[in-house]
Amino acid sequence: MNRLKILAVLLLATLTVNAQQKKYVMVIHGGAGTILKKNMTAEKEAAYIAALTKALQEGYKQIQAGKSSLDAVEATIHVMEDSPLFNAGKGAVFTHDGRNELDAAIMNGKTLQAGAIAGVTTIKNPISAARAVMEKSEHVMMVGDGADKFAKEVGLEIVDPKYFWTPERWNGLQKALKEDSAKAVLDHGNKKSMLLGTKNHDYKFGTVGCVALDKAGNLSAGTSTGGMTNKKYGRVGDAPIIGAGTYCNNETAGISCTGWGEYYIRNVVAKTISDLMEYKGLSVAEAAKIVQDKVAKMGGDGGLIALDRKGNVTMPFNTEGMYRGCITADGKVEVYIYK
Amino acid sequence: MNRLKILAVLLLATLTVNAQQKKYVMVIHGGAGTILKKNMTAEKEAAYIAALTKALQEGYKQIQAGKSSLDAVEATIHVMEDSPLFNAGKGAVFTHDGRNELDAAIMNGKTLQAGAIAGVTTIKNPISAARAVMEKSEHVMMVGDGADKFAKEVGLEIVDPKYFWTPERWNGLQKALKEDSAKAVLDHGNKKSMLLGTKNHDYKFGTVGCVALDKAGNLSAGTSTGGMTNKKYGRVGDAPIIGAGTYCNNETAGISCTGWGEYYIRNVVAKTISDLMEYKGLSVAEAAKIVQDKVAKMGGDGGLIALDRKGNVTMPFNTEGMYRGCITADGKVEVYIYK
Repeated sequence: MNRLKILAVLLLATLTVNAQQKKYVMVIHGGAGTILKKNMTAEKEAAYIAALTKALQEGYKQIQAGKSSLDAVEATIHVMEDSPLFNAGKGAVFTHDGRNELDAAIMNGKTLQAGAIAGVTTIKNPISAARAVMEKSEHVMMVGDGADKFAKEVGLEIVDPKYFWTPERWNGLQKALKEDSAKAVLDHGNKKSMLLGTKNHDYKFGTVGCVALDKAGNLSAGTSTGGMTNKKYGRVGDAPIIGAGTYCNNETAGISCTGWGEYYIRNVVAKTISDLMEYKGLSVAEAAKIVQDKVAKMGGDGGLIALDRKGNVTMPFNTEGMYRGCITADGKVEVYIYK
Repeated sequence: MNRLKILAVLLLATLTVNAQQKKYVMVIHGGAGTILKKNMTAEKEAAYIAALTKALQEGYKQIQAGKSSLDAVEATIHVMEDSPLFNAGKGAVFTHDGRNELDAAIMNGKTLQAGAIAGVTTIKNPISAARAVMEKSEHVMMVGDGADKFAKEVGLEIVDPKYFWTPERWNGLQKALKEDSAKAVLDHGNKKSMLLGTKNHDYKFGTVGCVALDKAGNLSAGTSTGGMTNKKYGRVGDAPIIGAGTYCNNETAGISCTGWGEYYIRNVVAKTISDLMEYKGLSVAEAAKIVQDKVAKMGGDGGLIALDRKGNVTMPFNTEGMYRGCITADGKVEVYIYK
């Protein structure tokens, strides 16, 4: 009996060690928000699971082929940008003026090079434009028409802005405009609150992101988004801000955030996670939890993904759900939606 | 004799303590770069010293009147934005297309609220637009025409873009264009290097910034810039990026950077200084030195100013000079230009 007990304890210990040693090579998110099972159809759920799985597999193929983590991040984010399910690329939400303005960033954890674009309207795959800024210019960030022009000059695929039109997002804008106008009537005379934009939190969410670890041990992270439904005045969120929504460093981790962008900027979330690892010796999970809790305490919500150079993954969020997934070094896909 | 020696030691100790206790309430910079005494006329030097002194005094007046550190930062930066001597507001450098595109950011160290604008062309005082984004919108960052529109709607002073035209900066652009075109001839056939923009480091510099500490013990930091001469493609530097060129936190320090913006973004300089103070217990001077050295080691150059809540100031830079100054709690102005 005693010997059996010892054996059981040993077995458990072995399993625990194995679980800890599970090595991930990629992690992705497809946005956080009020994602409730009761509001989801079986078809929609299956579509999200299929898209997240495909995204992970496309990136994994790059890693298996010995390509860089940058290639994996780009291939993975292309799948999500090309799907109308996610608020990035095709599927981007509409601004107040009925346009699609896209933001993206990418960072190389080995060299600490970074690239970002914001407020572009004609680039089919914004993540590739961010990469081109990093690799084919002296700059880190380009915004607006200038960034569109740059992307065209370096030969990226340019589309008519109509490409980004989807019925779901258009209806989302109409709903937001209606709520805004109802609010404006309530607020009549109070000019300031009319400037504040929608109070509906769910309009703030939806971004895609990816962190990958290649066979050479290099990390890369990328984020791409259409921003916030009904956004005005050229608003830019955290996704294209290096240090806020996107950061990557081989010495610590790669991080990509999604959520109420303003809180992620104010807390410089991604770099702070890296700094907690570098300066306090915390694990990626401990560091990410501390910073995500800080965002929540301040009143912000959303989530993030992080992957360290040893293959440890963490995916904390304080919303009802976050589309997310990861893949192990031996190709096992894990995909999650709800809490 | 022995008694005299003891008295002398005591006196020296008291003086040392007093020196350490010198409390600053404001620090400013007016840009870093190849500023050499041999290239400076006495008139130009006197003009810079006068402008820096006036900027410090305007902010100091606000603090003495019991106003917030935000008010002090805004008043101080207005002086530098309104002077053609600095690359911010009037005096901003020209883009490749002959425009002036302005960026600015401000942050409240008490609330961690922040505001930023980038790529605006009609706002007389960009720092006030950054403050309006922080205080009168739900957002942190606005870019391009949308940000100009917002500033107009909240009642800020709008000017014709011609307001920003100055002969010095226009000549600077012509010189840069000439160098670029000479370079393009040398590089014929090499499309990539034509995209890289100018290699003249001095075109990258010039920004104004301020950190202030008010009587209530609250810190604020702000930065304003015209960016880089001959910049293309809607390039945005570190100044309006919260965490990179601008950051402020009552628990640590307020920081504003100036220099080769791309390196300051990639190193998320301002937030990293704050994190070294918070997570490693370093002083503001130690933390700033570590991060500035990291920028230099990577090949970047520039400088920064930082002020902690106890009134300790630091102003490291690795260029030939940096226009800079600070003012003590009792109104003593210190202004420096060279190493």
